[in-house]
Amino acid sequence: MKLYDYAAAPNPRRVAIFLAEKGIELETVQVDLMAGEQKSAEFTAINPAQDVPALLLDDGTCISQVNAICLYLEALYPDNPLFGRTPLERAQVESWNHRIQDNGIGAVGEAFRNLTPGFKGRALPGPDSYEQIPELAQRGLKRTDNFFKQLDAHLANSQFIVGDYFSVADISAYMTVEFAGWIKKGIPEGCDNLQRWFDQISARPSVKR
Amino acid sequence: MKLYDYAAAPNPRRVAIFLAEKGIELETVQVDLMAGEQKSAEFTAINPAQDVPALLLDDGTCISQVNAICLYLEALYPDNPLFGRTPLERAQVESWNHRIQDNGIGAVGEAFRNLTPGFKGRALPGPDSYEQIPELAQRGLKRTDNFFKQLDAHLANSQFIVGDYFSVADISAYMTVEFAGWIKKGIPEGCDNLQRWFDQISARPSVKR
Repeated sequence: MKLYDYAAAPNPRRVAIFLAEKGIELETVQVDLMAGEQKSAEFTAINPAQDVPALLLDDGTCISQVNAICLYLEALYPDNPLFGRTPLERAQVESWNHRIQDNGIGAVGEAFRNLTPGFKGRALPGPDSYEQIPELAQRGLKRTDNFFKQLDAHLANSQFIVGDYFSVADISAYMTVEFAGWIKKGIPEGCDNLQRWFDQISARPSVKR
Repeated sequence: MKLYDYAAAPNPRRVAIFLAEKGIELETVQVDLMAGEQKSAEFTAINPAQDVPALLLDDGTCISQVNAICLYLEALYPDNPLFGRTPLERAQVESWNHRIQDNGIGAVGEAFRNLTPGFKGRALPGPDSYEQIPELAQRGLKRTDNFFKQLDAHLANSQFIVGDYFSVADISAYMTVEFAGWIKKGIPEGCDNLQRWFDQISARPSVKR
C-alpha cells in the first residue's frame, strides 16, 4: 500500500492528520502538483482522476478522495475511530463533514483558485480547464466569512464539531482555517467559540508540522 | 422518526429512491421549498441548516444531508446494503459518490441556480444570500457536459458505477441525469455507455414516479 501525497496541499494534509491521529505509518510518494506531475501519463495510469491524495493498493487498485481513503484505512485500523462510534454519531460526522467540505474548504478553494494568478485556466481541480471568474473569487471570500460565523455559532454549545467526540469533521474544519490563510483570511473578530476550538485542535500533536 | 421532504427536488428524491430500494417506509412531511417554508421559524427550530431532506428522530435530534440520512438508515436497516459490502467497496462508493456530487449534481446545480430567474439572490442553498453570476451558469453547463463524458468513459468497463454492484453512487449519478433535464441538458450524443447504464437504472421500480 502506497500513499500518493503532496504534503503542502490541504486535502493530502487531511489524510496526514488522520494517519497521525490513528498512529498509521504508510509509504508515501510525493506528486509535485505545482509542477503538474498529477497530469503525467505515469500518474494518470495509476489514478485517472489525476488528483492526490490517492491510495494505491498492492493489487493495483487505486482509491482517490480524502474520505474514501480514510474510510478504507478506518476499516483496516479500527482503533480510535474517527468516523463515529454509533450509527447516530456516524451520521452526524458525515453531515458536518459534508457541510464543511462544501461551505468551508469549498469556499476557500473557490476564492483561492479564482484569485491566484498561477491558477489561470485551472479554476477547478481535475483534467478539464476552467477560466477564473473574478466575481467567484469575491463570492468565495464572502462565503468563507459566513462559514466561520456559522461554525462559531455551532461551537457555542459543542466542544468538538460533533459533541465531545473528535472526528474527521474536526480535521476538515481545522484544514478550512489553515487553508484560509492562503487567501489571507483569519478567524473573524468576535468568533470566540471558533477561536477556542481552533486553539484546542492546534495543540494536538497530529496537526503540528 | 419523520422525514422532512420536498418530493420534486433532487436531493430529497435521492433519499426517496434509497428508501424504495431498501423497502423502508417512513412518515414524511412536505416542506414547500418554492414557498420558502424551509426558512420558517418552525422549520429552522427543527433543522437550523434550513434544508431538506432532514430526518427528525423521536428524541428531537435532526440529521440533515442526503448521505448522512441514508447512512443512518443503512445502519438501522442493514439488508440490501447500498454503501458497499466490503471495506474496498465502501471506499469506492464513497469516492465515486463524492465526485458525482461535486462534478455532477454540483455542476447542474451551479447552472440551474445561476440561470433561473426565480433564484435571484439564492444562487447557493442555505441561509445566506448570494447573487447569480452569469459566467458561473455557463461554467455549470460546460461542466455538466464534461462530467457526462467522464462518466461515459468510466462506464465502458463497468455495469454500475462501482463494478457489478448497485449503490448510492448510482442513485446520485441517476439524479444528475434527471436534474440535468432542468437545465435542458441530456446525455450527449455518442455517450452510449452512459445511455445504456441510464436505461438500465430507469427500469428499476425504485426510480419510477
